[in-house]
Amino acid sequence: MEIKVIRKVLDVNNTMAKQNRKMFTEKEVFVLNVMSSPGSGKTTTLEKTLSYIIPEIKSAVIVGDICTSNDANRLATTGVSVVQINTDEFGGDCHLAAHVVEKAACNLDLDAIDLLIVENVGNLVCPAEFDIGEDAKIVVLSVTEGEDKPVKYPLMFRVCDAAILNKIDLLPYLDYNREEVLNNIRQVHPEMPVFELSAKTGDGFTPWIEWLKSGVNRKIAG
Amino acid sequence: MEIKVIRKVLDVNNTMAKQNRKMFTEKEVFVLNVMSSPGSGKTTTLEKTLSYIIPEIKSAVIVGDICTSNDANRLATTGVSVVQINTDEFGGDCHLAAHVVEKAACNLDLDAIDLLIVENVGNLVCPAEFDIGEDAKIVVLSVTEGEDKPVKYPLMFRVCDAAILNKIDLLPYLDYNREEVLNNIRQVHPEMPVFELSAKTGDGFTPWIEWLKSGVNRKIAG
Repeated sequence: MEIKVIRKVLDVNNTMAKQNRKMFTEKEVFVLNVMSSPGSGKTTTLEKTLSYIIPEIKSAVIVGDICTSNDANRLATTGVSVVQINTDEFGGDCHLAAHVVEKAACNLDLDAIDLLIVENVGNLVCPAEFDIGEDAKIVVLSVTEGEDKPVKYPLMFRVCDAAILNKIDLLPYLDYNREEVLNNIRQVHPEMPVFELSAKTGDGFTPWIEWLKSGVNRKIAG
Repeated sequence: MEIKVIRKVLDVNNTMAKQNRKMFTEKEVFVLNVMSSPGSGKTTTLEKTLSYIIPEIKSAVIVGDICTSNDANRLATTGVSVVQINTDEFGGDCHLAAHVVEKAACNLDLDAIDLLIVENVGNLVCPAEFDIGEDAKIVVLSVTEGEDKPVKYPLMFRVCDAAILNKIDLLPYLDYNREEVLNNIRQVHPEMPVFELSAKTGDGFTPWIEWLKSGVNRKIAG
């Protein structure tokens, strides 16, 4: 029963996601869906990313959390428009659904931006199943989470277009096998770009920023 | 619609959980439901925990993952019986439901054990909603995940009977405010015991092992 019911929820979501995609394309906004486990450093990565791309790329952020507006407050200090979604108003959802993103996007001036970043709820499972009408999905994995997550949570790594391997500043203090995590990612998604960086120090950001900018520019060019 | 549907799933689960609880009580088995984000160190914590309590406490483990049997293989080296559940056989579920635990428990000799540890799917959201018939729920949070998780994922910290704060061996290398995380936990669940430890080094395990043993002994004494 459970599976049938979930399929129905996903069908409704896919219809809404298509409408979102149409709206974002008309407005020439590149939409990035950022997913990860809780605590992998999504917000810090986005703060640092925004510091490298604004004002060149006009940006806004939608932040999904079950509770609190901590992340929105942190991201608002970068000067971009931020809309916080608290999913406890939608039954404590473990993911952002397309209709929730649409509602949040209505609070933003889409004509004034080229990039909309959606920071999803911290969860390496459920958000992978929900299309929100984005152009690209990325997953942030921190090195403190171990090497095996790509094969244990394969759907997330399969649906994403790029992976960020965060917190490389902690590598000297961990028993971490970099080759093993890269092999695990390749096993699930052979061609996926992986950006190894530290959101704390800024190390390794250049290739990631280039990848993001080229996505935005492709979208603007239609 | 989504919320109504989820409520129905939870009703079915609660009925099954009651049957599990009755079965575990008849067999005098203390059941511990261990939950956390992916990568917070559940498996390492359980490996170390088992090394401190066996053979004194006869134990078995049920491990839930979406994919792979990595964790079961690691825990099997401790010598206890381990049953791996892969939820991709149940639609890729993001949590262990009561009927899935019941099925796994049928593969164990419950008369031969006093403690059944259930390592849930790595997810700080959904498993909190699913009663599996356990005696106690615990949440493992690692210090690398930041201080704000208890207030951002309050349901998990509210339903749990104790919290383990793991990876304290990494504290010298992090900007981490220990008082802040403890305050955040107390804000959500004022009386909850918090065990600060390192599953890697074994530091801080004594109070945690005492808490666990006293739970098992209470259950055996009926």
